[in-house]
Formats: sequence, C-alpha cells, structure tokens
Amino acid sequence: MLRTHTCGELNIKHIGQEVTLSGWVQKSRDLGGMTFIDIRDRYGITQLVFNMEMNKSLCEQARKIGREFVIQASGKVTERSNKNPKILTGEIEIIVDSLEVLSPSKTPPFTIEDKSDGGDELRMKFRYLDLRRNPLKKNMQLRHKMALETRSYLDSLGFFEIETPFLIKSTPEGARDFVVPSRMNEGQFYALPQSPQTFKQLLMVAGYDRYFQIVRCFRDEDLRADRQPEFTLIDCEMSFVTQEDILTTFEGLAKHLFKKVKGVEIEDFSWMPYSEAMKYYGSDKPDLRFGMKFVELNDVAQNKGFKVFDDSELVVGINAKGCGNYSRKQLDKLTDFVRKPQIGAKGLVYVKYNEDGSFKSSVDKFFDQEVLKSWTEKFGAKPGDLILIISGDKDKTRKALSELRLEMGNRLELRNPNIFKPLWVVDFPLLEWNEDSQRFHAMHHPFTSPKKEDIDKMESDPGAVRANAYDMVINGVEIGGGSIRIHNKDLQKQMFKVLGFTDEEAQNQFGFLMNAFEYGAPPHGGIALGFDRLVALFGGSDSIRDYIAFPKNNAGKDMMIDSPSEISEEQLDELKLKVVL
Amino acid sequence: MLRTHTCGELNIKHIGQEVTLSGWVQKSRDLGGMTFIDIRDRYGITQLVFNMEMNKSLCEQARKIGREFVIQASGKVTERSNKNPKILTGEIEIIVDSLEVLSPSKTPPFTIEDKSDGGDELRMKFRYLDLRRNPLKKNMQLRHKMALETRSYLDSLGFFEIETPFLIKSTPEGARDFVVPSRMNEGQFYALPQSPQTFKQLLMVAGYDRYFQIVRCFRDEDLRADRQPEFTLIDCEMSFVTQEDILTTFEGLAKHLFKKVKGVEIEDFSWMPYSEAMKYYGSDKPDLRFGMKFVELNDVAQNKGFKVFDDSELVVGINAKGCGNYSRKQLDKLTDFVRKPQIGAKGLVYVKYNEDGSFKSSVDKFFDQEVLKSWTEKFGAKPGDLILIISGDKDKTRKALSELRLEMGNRLELRNPNIFKPLWVVDFPLLEWNEDSQRFHAMHHPFTSPKKEDIDKMESDPGAVRANAYDMVINGVEIGGGSIRIHNKDLQKQMFKVLGFTDEEAQNQFGFLMNAFEYGAPPHGGIALGFDRLVALFGGSDSIRDYIAFPKNNAGKDMMIDSPSEISEEQLDELKLKVVL
Repeated sequence: MLRTHTCGELNIKHIGQEVTLSGWVQKSRDLGGMTFIDIRDRYGITQLVFNMEMNKSLCEQARKIGREFVIQASGKVTERSNKNPKILTGEIEIIVDSLEVLSPSKTPPFTIEDKSDGGDELRMKFRYLDLRRNPLKKNMQLRHKMALETRSYLDSLGFFEIETPFLIKSTPEGARDFVVPSRMNEGQFYALPQSPQTFKQLLMVAGYDRYFQIVRCFRDEDLRADRQPEFTLIDCEMSFVTQEDILTTFEGLAKHLFKKVKGVEIEDFSWMPYSEAMKYYGSDKPDLRFGMKFVELNDVAQNKGFKVFDDSELVVGINAKGCGNYSRKQLDKLTDFVRKPQIGAKGLVYVKYNEDGSFKSSVDKFFDQEVLKSWTEKFGAKPGDLILIISGDKDKTRKALSELRLEMGNRLELRNPNIFKPLWVVDFPLLEWNEDSQRFHAMHHPFTSPKKEDIDKMESDPGAVRANAYDMVINGVEIGGGSIRIHNKDLQKQMFKVLGFTDEEAQNQFGFLMNAFEYGAPPHGGIALGFDRLVALFGGSDSIRDYIAFPKNNAGKDMMIDSPSEISEEQLDELKLKVVL
Repeated sequence: MLRTHTCGELNIKHIGQEVTLSGWVQKSRDLGGMTFIDIRDRYGITQLVFNMEMNKSLCEQARKIGREFVIQASGKVTERSNKNPKILTGEIEIIVDSLEVLSPSKTPPFTIEDKSDGGDELRMKFRYLDLRRNPLKKNMQLRHKMALETRSYLDSLGFFEIETPFLIKSTPEGARDFVVPSRMNEGQFYALPQSPQTFKQLLMVAGYDRYFQIVRCFRDEDLRADRQPEFTLIDCEMSFVTQEDILTTFEGLAKHLFKKVKGVEIEDFSWMPYSEAMKYYGSDKPDLRFGMKFVELNDVAQNKGFKVFDDSELVVGINAKGCGNYSRKQLDKLTDFVRKPQIGAKGLVYVKYNEDGSFKSSVDKFFDQEVLKSWTEKFGAKPGDLILIISGDKDKTRKALSELRLEMGNRLELRNPNIFKPLWVVDFPLLEWNEDSQRFHAMHHPFTSPKKEDIDKMESDPGAVRANAYDMVINGVEIGGGSIRIHNKDLQKQMFKVLGFTDEEAQNQFGFLMNAFEYGAPPHGGIALGFDRLVALFGGSDSIRDYIAFPKNNAGKDMMIDSPSEISEEQLDELKLKVVL
C-alpha cells in the first residue's frame, strides 16, 4: 500500500508514530513560516504541517502543490495545539518529512466542497469530480449498505438471489423496450428487460420458492426529472403465499432497513384500499405524515345557486389548520398554484373561519353564514382554520386537490423528512381504461390476478374487477408494488383477451409462460421495489440522480462519456442495419 | 402461507402434529389398499399416505394425481415403520386427511430426476422443468451463497459495491459490442459493457478507494461451448496499491470462499511468471494439480541427423510416469490426439524406458541407446516411464504439448476435482502481435500499465515490454485477471499510439478517461473474476451453463422464450432503423 493509514484514522493514540498518507489536497494555507495542507481520502481529512525553519526545501515544495493534487506524505503524528473537534483526526497533525506528488491536477472546474459552485451540466460532465464531494460519497455508501442489508435480510428468510437474463424478448405490453440487434441471428433483436417479471414467475414454476434479485432494468420512456432509462429494482417472488404473507415479509424488509441503516424503529404499516386512498387523499400514494383528509361537500354545497359547484361531479376540500389569517395575496398564490397546467384546476374556493366565529369566503355571494358553518363542521374546523375547496370532474379534481394538500403540507412544514409513515395501498383495480387506445390496460401488469370474488365480472364489467395488487408507499413516495399472480393458463388467456390480445398474439409473446403453467405452477406472488427511490428516501432527498453513480440526463445522455453516439458503418453492416433519418 | 411446514423439515419431533404441506408430486405408488405420494419442494421430499380403508374417496382422489401436479395436503405426522435414512424426513410420513390440487400438470417431456432422460435441446426449451432437478437447484444455491460470501468479504475490507451504467459507449478495441439504438437521440447508439473498466477507474479518480460489483457484462462473440453472450463478473478496483496488495486481497477472497462455501482450507497461491508458465507448461493457465513439466531437448536431440527435429524451433517433451507399458494402439491414439486440427501437432515421438533399463523409441533409427538415455535423464525418468515429445514452431508446439499434458493428466487421473491448486500468473507481456491486423494488441486491455523498468522499450521493442498484469488460475482454469492501471495521461496516450490509434481516435473514444487523469488520478489497479466459471469450478464442473439459470445456446438463442426475434415495423420506425438482409 502507498500508505500506512487512511486520512480518517489517526488520533491521539498514534502520537509519535511515523506514518505515510496518500490522498488529495483539499486545501493548503501558507502562513509564512508554516504551510498547512489538508489531505483527503474517502475516509477523512488529516492536517499536514511543513515548517520553513525545519525543512525549507520541503516547505517550498509543499507550497507549489495545488488543490486536488494527489500526494503521498510521510512524517510523524503530533498533537495539535489548536484542536479541531469537528473532524475525527482533529486532535493530531503530521509533521511531514517527505513528500511526493503522485499525480498533479489542473484546477477543477468547480469546488470540491459540500456545497459546490458548479452548475448541473458541468457537474454531470465532470461526474468523477462531483463524486468526490462528501454528500455524494455518503449517498454511494448508503446505497452500498442498503443493498447489503437487503440481501442479508432476504437470505435469512431463505430467498435465493438468482440472476435472470438481460438479453430477452421484446413485448409490446407496457412501456417501450430498448432493443439489441443480434448479429448472429440476422434481422432479429433481443430486448432489455423492463423487469424480470416472466423469469421470476418461471423460477416459481421451477420450484425455487423464494427468489430475489437486485437488478438493473430498462425503460425507453421520455424522461422526467425523476426517471432514468436504467434503474435498479429489488425484485422478489414467493410461492405458496397469500397477499398477507408477502406484505408481512416486505414490511419486515423495510423495518430491517430502517433499523440497520438509519437506526429508526418505524411503526407498523397501515393498510388502505385504493378506493379510500383516492377518496380521502386523491392519490394512490398518500403522504400520511399529516392528515388534511379530503371532505366531500356535494350534499351541502350543491343546489344552492352557485353554478360552478352545481355543474361539478365533485366538490371537495381540505382544512388547512391555522391558516385562517392568510392574506389576499397568499390566497391568490394558492389559486395560481392550482391553476398551473400540471395541476389543472379551474379555480379555488376558500372559507376562512374567523377568530370571532364568523366566516369569510370567496363565494359569500352564494352561501350564507349558516351554510358556510355547515361546511366547516364537516371538517371539524375551528376558528383560525382555512377551508380550501376545488370542484369539477371527479378524477381531475381529486388529483388537483391532492397536489394542493401536499403544497399546504410543505407550507405548514408537516412533511418532516425524519418521520416515516409507511403504508400498503391494497385492492387496486385490475384494469384501467385507456382513452388513446380505447381499450383496457393492466393497471400493474397482465400477470396480476383478479380477486376471486370479482372474476365473474372480467367480461361483464372489467373496470370493476379488483386485483390482488398492492403498493408500498412511504411518505407519499411509491417505493414499489406487486401482486399475487395468475398461475392458471385459462385465466391468463382470459386476461390477455380482456387486454385486446388475439390468441395468436398472446401465444407468440407469452406462450412460454402460459405453457409453463401447464406443468404444475404453484400459486405465487411477489413485489418489486424501486431501489433508487428507496435509497433517495433514506437519504432524505427527492432526486434519485444523486444516488446513482453515473446517471443520465433528461435526454437519456451520459454527458461524461458522451453517449449515445454514432457507431461505425462496419458495425451497422455486420448487424444488417441501416440508419434512416 | 399455503403450508405450515416445508417438505424438508418434518422429523420425529413433529409426530402427532397436524400439518399442511404444498409441493409437487415427485412420484406416487398405488399398493392396492394404500397409496403413497412423495411431495417435493425446494427443501425436500415428504411421504404422504392415503389409506383405502380409512378414507376411500380421498384415496381414490389421490390415485388420480399425476407426476408434477402441485398439491396441498393436510394430515397428521406419523412415525414410519419403514424408515428411509437417505432423506431428512425419512423417519416420518403424513397420514393425509385433506387434499387439494392447486395446479394440474401435463406429463413432463423428460423425467425430473437427478439424471434426466431429456436431451440438451429439450431441456433448454423447458428450462423451468430442468431447473426443478436437484443438481441444478444445488448449483443455483451454490451461486447465491458464493455471491453473498463475496459481498460479505469485500464489504468487511471496506469495498463499496457501486453500480455502473449498462447503457454506455461503443469502442472498437477488444471484442465486439452489443449496441442499443437510442430513440431519443436519432441515429445514435449505446453499447452494453464488456466490463465496467473505465467506470471503475473513474471511481478511483473520484476517490472511492475500494470498489466492487457483481455485474453482468456482454460480448458479441461467436460462441464456444463455455462462453455466453452475457456473463457475470466480480469486478474490483483499489487505489494506492501495489500489485502485491491486490493479489493478497483476492487470494484472501478465494480462501474465504473455499472455506465458507466448501469448508476447504486451500494452500497459499503460487506465483509464476508468464514466461515460466509458457516454458514449463505451454500455457498461461497451467494446471498445477500434477507435475509433468516440459523438458526442452534441443541440445540433446538436434544435429543428430533426424531432420524433423533439426528443422524445429523447439523440441520438447513430458514424462508420463508409469506409462512405459503403453501398447502400440494406445500410442497411436495419442498420436491421433495431437494431430487433431484443434491441437495441431504434426506427430508425436515417444521413448519408452523399459523395466530392463533399455529404451524403445519411435525414432530408434536416428538415436542410439546412449542418446535416448541422456534424454530420459533430463526428465529424471525411471524404468516404466514414457517420454512424449513434440517438435516444431515454438508457440504451436508448446500449445500442443500443453493439451497432451492435460490429456495425460486426465488418463492418469491426476486432475482430482476435489483438490485445488491456486496460482497467480504474473509478468504478462503488455502487448501481443496480431497477424491479421498487422499491429500490436493489448494482451489484457489498453489501460494496463507497463512495468516501470520496461517503459523505455515501448517504442523501440514493444513486444518485450512486460505489464503489471496478473491472472488468477485454479486447476488450469483462468478465473480472472487484472492489472495495475495507467493513471497518467501521457503514458495512456503513448499506449494508444502503440496500439495504432490516432490522437483523435484516442481522444474521441477515451478522452473522458484521459481528461479525468488530469484532475488528480491516484495510482490504482484491480481485477475481474469470471463469476460463472468460479461457481462452476466450485461445483466441480466445466460447464458454466449448468450454473446459469437461463443460459443461451451456442447460437446465442434463448430456446425457452424464443429470443432473439423480429420486432415490429413500428419499433424499427421509431428507432429510425431499417433491416437490410
């Protein structure tokens, strides 16, 4: 090793020892007679001292060394007169007697500090420098630890990690596949997996009983800020289980991770049917760190002469406790907020419950004090509260009010990142109607089983069929989801039929799975958790990009290696492909 | 759970308990008054008993159940009169009182037994049934355990597992890339990684100090029996290390795995320079479970009038101890063996050391007893031994004799799969001349550093430059290799120049790495081990395919899911691609 110790391990116990450290120059200070260099590695920072009187030439050499140079320094560990209690090595310093520059450095394009001065684009291009910063190092360490603890927990329950293939088959259901042309099989393509779904089900058919994998998956979608074309799943499947067995097992995983990684004992997960989540929170991933439940007002707000409400499918509101003193300007801002295109409400109605017991509302003209009072009673509101109401088409209104609820949660600081409220959302619909394609799509995926008691509605009323499907939601973040699967060929065929597949299409694309079901398929189910998002949640951030070592930008580009890029004509010829722009 | 216990856990302690088991029917026997069903899951096999007298209808129901049906059976644990000590549950049986068929099964196309009657192709197509067999289950369990222990060992040494991207950039150096067309960036392609090489080096530049990853990689090569287009690496990199540090660390990994997984304490690794491995074993991955070292005979066999030897660059042989009694027919077979095109020798010369002290050779005509004696002395041969000699061009002759040595090792049963002889082959050449392209290629890869003392030969005599490169070899299997890397931009540029890159090509393809070296790159090095091969070695097999859950065949096809396959015109249009056959 080019060091005897790391830059994070020396302390008062090492005083008098001759040591060698290697690392990067964090900063250097020249105080005339003395020069100090802070040397940094993954483990910490140690102060090196050079003394003009004791060793002039060495000190002069040290003065020439710039930020981010890689150096190797040997010397004696000495007690510091001016101790720094903030760092682990703050009690000591090294009186250097030999110094070597292992690698010089140009001046970095941004500072390597906890808060960098670099813009996003620059930091993506020089990702290897951005990764030197402490916050990113902590994120990578967190990710490593969480993967390790996930494996340890699942192994202890008898799960095998089994690697499934990356070069698989393209299927049109779901998101767009990335495809991979095959040179050996001309004109044919592999696809990269969006998930190991069919393979893990085949592993259940093969009797593996408990499977997991922490695995990269791929989705060729137009990217949003929090999406990446490649992402990592904790993917799991179990045989001979009920839905409750799976939820218990993976609630256990979440608790294990919180305990081992964050030292936090989280509470038991709540369970909430999808319909309830939509009715009371307008979202299938409600943030339960705060209440502010929806209250529907149709019965007390309609047929009183206010046309906007009368024409609405739904009139629904929330109580922003203690916001009764909001100014006109503040209320206007909230109205602007709900009117943003991505929120989509037409307007916002408020009712202030004044401290004197009276009510002030934007719709005073249509509703007298008695009526307004009856509304606030529905919320259990008190003087000083503010009722915010949106109306219109049911689905859109709920979605808009859900956004407003989260916004008010932020404003009232009810979304503490150090509090964790875990939830299972259950009883999802099996199917959802898609206006574009004018057919039902699978809400989770086509392998999800319908609830037994709803199977007879599969043909007569597909939209009403509930699935044995569930999502893990923590603090309003959908960590992942899963289902009990279909394990019967006929039911699987029926499902494909409802989704608009011809028998031939179904057989062509998923025949291998349906055939496998004919050779003794056990009842089985599973779950897939988004690992990037889970790590970000643990790190207290919304941005998964900060938890991926080499992420891509919103155009799917790796700015550092400049990829994707053109390939040679020779490569294209070998693949029997032509680019047609 | 649809069971109270697994099929592998009930024993004498459970007698009298009411239990429920779920699993597959391994076999059933109808003995008139009694019917026995062996029910199987991942954990074991348990005997179910149905009694015609006690419960006629249930017994009749049981008789209808075929092999590989999935059933759920409840009943009482009872002591067996006829115990089976071979299985864990052999002391008990279940007197069944209720039975449900969870999933029927067609008759499988081959038997689900340790030795199946199915051919390779059929077993690949029905891989999910082949995977039900015990040998494959054990292989998958072994793989899981080895991955877990690898992670545990490396974590304990401060390595972080960091995930590197799969959608990277195509580079012409090395094997052929699989490419992935980008829809969002028209006419451009990603490539799938052949290894995370450049990313792990960037992680060292970023200060991560110790990185590892168990990671899938891809190579679009014409496949041989033991190659797969996708394969798994244990990929590692360390900073501030010498070659010896890396070898010590990964020798430690091998020892840890042998101890934890196989309960075997293996000996310390030998070290052997590449030149010695070639000279004495004709191979850079010698099997050291047996001796049979090469002895060069040029000085005693040339210039004695035998033209074949006189015209040869190298005359070299091995001593097959105790084979002096080989018959004419046996010797002819060995000659046929070395003449096979894949071995490539023109012929084989033998010298038998007879028990009476005389010598019998196929070249008696040219060499008298005295000369033959001088040869055998070089081998330290004894009466009863057989010297086998090949001559010709140096490289080809060594290769052929290496194959013959292994063949003799097999015949003499010197290659015991339960003995492990680990070895580091070191001091590889940096470059090797390629006749086809008429230029030097990197023997490992272009990031491997030359030995300091050889750097001045980079221009004058590139073929003589040795590298800081090493391979891990166990029992003649190359488990993996690595090197101390170049961490200096100028040296890296020089290396690309020797490899025939123009400055522009080098910058275009690897500029991101060379630029990174300008911002303080630490000295670093690493290793990559072939995980598939390592697991196969532990399993005592040569075939990696048996250690991969869903392998591809020699044409790169997944026979089970029928991939690769054609994709839709719509998909091609979106990707701006046209297939030109």
